[in-house]
Amino acid sequence: MENERLKQFSFFEPIIELIPLVDAKMREQSEGSHEYLQDALNHLLDSGGKRIRSALTLLISSMFKVEKERMITLAAAVEMLHTATLVHDDLIDGSVLRRGNPTLNSKWSPGAAILTGDYLFARAAKLAAETNSLEIMNMFAYKLSIIVNGEVVQLFNKRGRSTMEDYFQKIHAKTASLFELASIAPVYISTKNEEDVRLLGIYGNNIGMAFQIVDDVLDYVGDQAQVGKPIVSDLRQGLVTLPALYYLEENPNDPRFEKFVIEGDEKPKDMDGLIEDILKSGAVEKAIEKAREFTNIGLRALSEFADCPEKEALSELALININRDF
Amino acid sequence: MENERLKQFSFFEPIIELIPLVDAKMREQSEGSHEYLQDALNHLLDSGGKRIRSALTLLISSMFKVEKERMITLAAAVEMLHTATLVHDDLIDGSVLRRGNPTLNSKWSPGAAILTGDYLFARAAKLAAETNSLEIMNMFAYKLSIIVNGEVVQLFNKRGRSTMEDYFQKIHAKTASLFELASIAPVYISTKNEEDVRLLGIYGNNIGMAFQIVDDVLDYVGDQAQVGKPIVSDLRQGLVTLPALYYLEENPNDPRFEKFVIEGDEKPKDMDGLIEDILKSGAVEKAIEKAREFTNIGLRALSEFADCPEKEALSELALININRDF
Repeated sequence: MENERLKQFSFFEPIIELIPLVDAKMREQSEGSHEYLQDALNHLLDSGGKRIRSALTLLISSMFKVEKERMITLAAAVEMLHTATLVHDDLIDGSVLRRGNPTLNSKWSPGAAILTGDYLFARAAKLAAETNSLEIMNMFAYKLSIIVNGEVVQLFNKRGRSTMEDYFQKIHAKTASLFELASIAPVYISTKNEEDVRLLGIYGNNIGMAFQIVDDVLDYVGDQAQVGKPIVSDLRQGLVTLPALYYLEENPNDPRFEKFVIEGDEKPKDMDGLIEDILKSGAVEKAIEKAREFTNIGLRALSEFADCPEKEALSELALININRDF
Repeated sequence: MENERLKQFSFFEPIIELIPLVDAKMREQSEGSHEYLQDALNHLLDSGGKRIRSALTLLISSMFKVEKERMITLAAAVEMLHTATLVHDDLIDGSVLRRGNPTLNSKWSPGAAILTGDYLFARAAKLAAETNSLEIMNMFAYKLSIIVNGEVVQLFNKRGRSTMEDYFQKIHAKTASLFELASIAPVYISTKNEEDVRLLGIYGNNIGMAFQIVDDVLDYVGDQAQVGKPIVSDLRQGLVTLPALYYLEENPNDPRFEKFVIEGDEKPKDMDGLIEDILKSGAVEKAIEKAREFTNIGLRALSEFADCPEKEALSELALININRDF
């Protein structure tokens, strides 16, 4: 069933038969633990998600002829780390829904969500250790500290003017760093070639940046039902993403920014006016263009590799993100 | 200063000059991160703690002639993992003080405490990876999942009758499993001898069990100022530890247990009566005797090693726990 759902994305084709094996490997991780942890993990995995990060790992592992069992373990580790961070994110943000399903903090309790996240971190580390690569272990631990540090920055600088550079650092920590990890880890259990690491690092990082920008753009232009949250909820919460930053570049003294975004004095009606002006300003189109730039940098790095079905799939995965009907 | 404080414990002697280096190694872990994380880590490390777990690792590493830099890294990893679990524990329990200092959740916010714990997990894993031992990485991840699973059991079975076996499983997960890790990890970066692992596993696990039992006993008989929390706060919260379990063995039908502990209907005055009866029943003495048994099993395993100052210190560390004025 999971396979059926994912078949619509053509980039899964070279690795489609591995997806259920990764899913099974992840579910195995709660075996022998308290039944709540088993329920919680199944709840999280049943909620779907596109499994983009594990797809990256599987495609690149397959391109590098990594042994099957090892690539499944690595892909499960990557996806598990991502899942763990989402559990704590939802708790900190007080989110009650993710992908239309209740979050653990709303379904059970904050304590249960804290411990589930911790358990999944432990199991992600265990899976990473099972790849028998010290480089991979090191990277997992390091990337997790980058992700968490990024969340701390966001928590403590929630409101206030932020620069374009702050934004790019934030989305690197939040999304691109794990895309990068997912893309380079397979090299460490195959060629260990430094140039391969460098090129796939560029690919993963830049595609990750593009994915996060598109995610942020969809908050402005996405259909509410599709994104699963109120339109432009980011800005309403004081979160300045790329479209707002481009608007600010052109309108640095718009007083509504001080009032709403920085001081947090939300009056939805005037807020709607600001959002409307951002949408009319061309800022969203600039943000999409920026995502396209990142994607092209990633694709240029990818083009250095010999042609193969996996390479084609990696290219599709990158393009599907920006070639959508915004 | 930290050294001065710890010098009172004679078992630190063979490794006393390493303690500030472990402390520095831990503080280093927040370098380059958001200043909140630096403050939080310093706050946690300034709060003291006896650093028993890192002492175990240092003493055994020294006994096994592990190279200095590597033993410091390993000891810092062990202590960091412990610190991370405390941060989330305090948050889940809603504790406002630990060792007389405000907890992160009370000083900052729940979100800040969640992320600090996550960051410390990441850095503990990074330090463990820096020992360059896959076995150690594997053990760290596995033990963390044991600890967290134990906390989940405690969270979901907070009230209700629990058996002696439940209690021993719980304190193994909560305390003994990390004492065990601290004791066997040094072997994996030295002899890798299976018999050494087995014996030190017995030592670490049993000493850990004894430490947790004594901690639970001190909740009954400890001086409030010394323990830093109200006397018998465990039972008042519905937490049945070893003294209460021994009392229940002799008085299985005491209706006050149903009322207070299981149903959570707390009437402090009657509760005082129950506590008084437990104290008079000899249950506390039985619990201390049980801690002594665990300690002896640990010491028997330790006795298999050749005499050396570290072995003597490990023996003192175990005995200081039970040879106190209860």
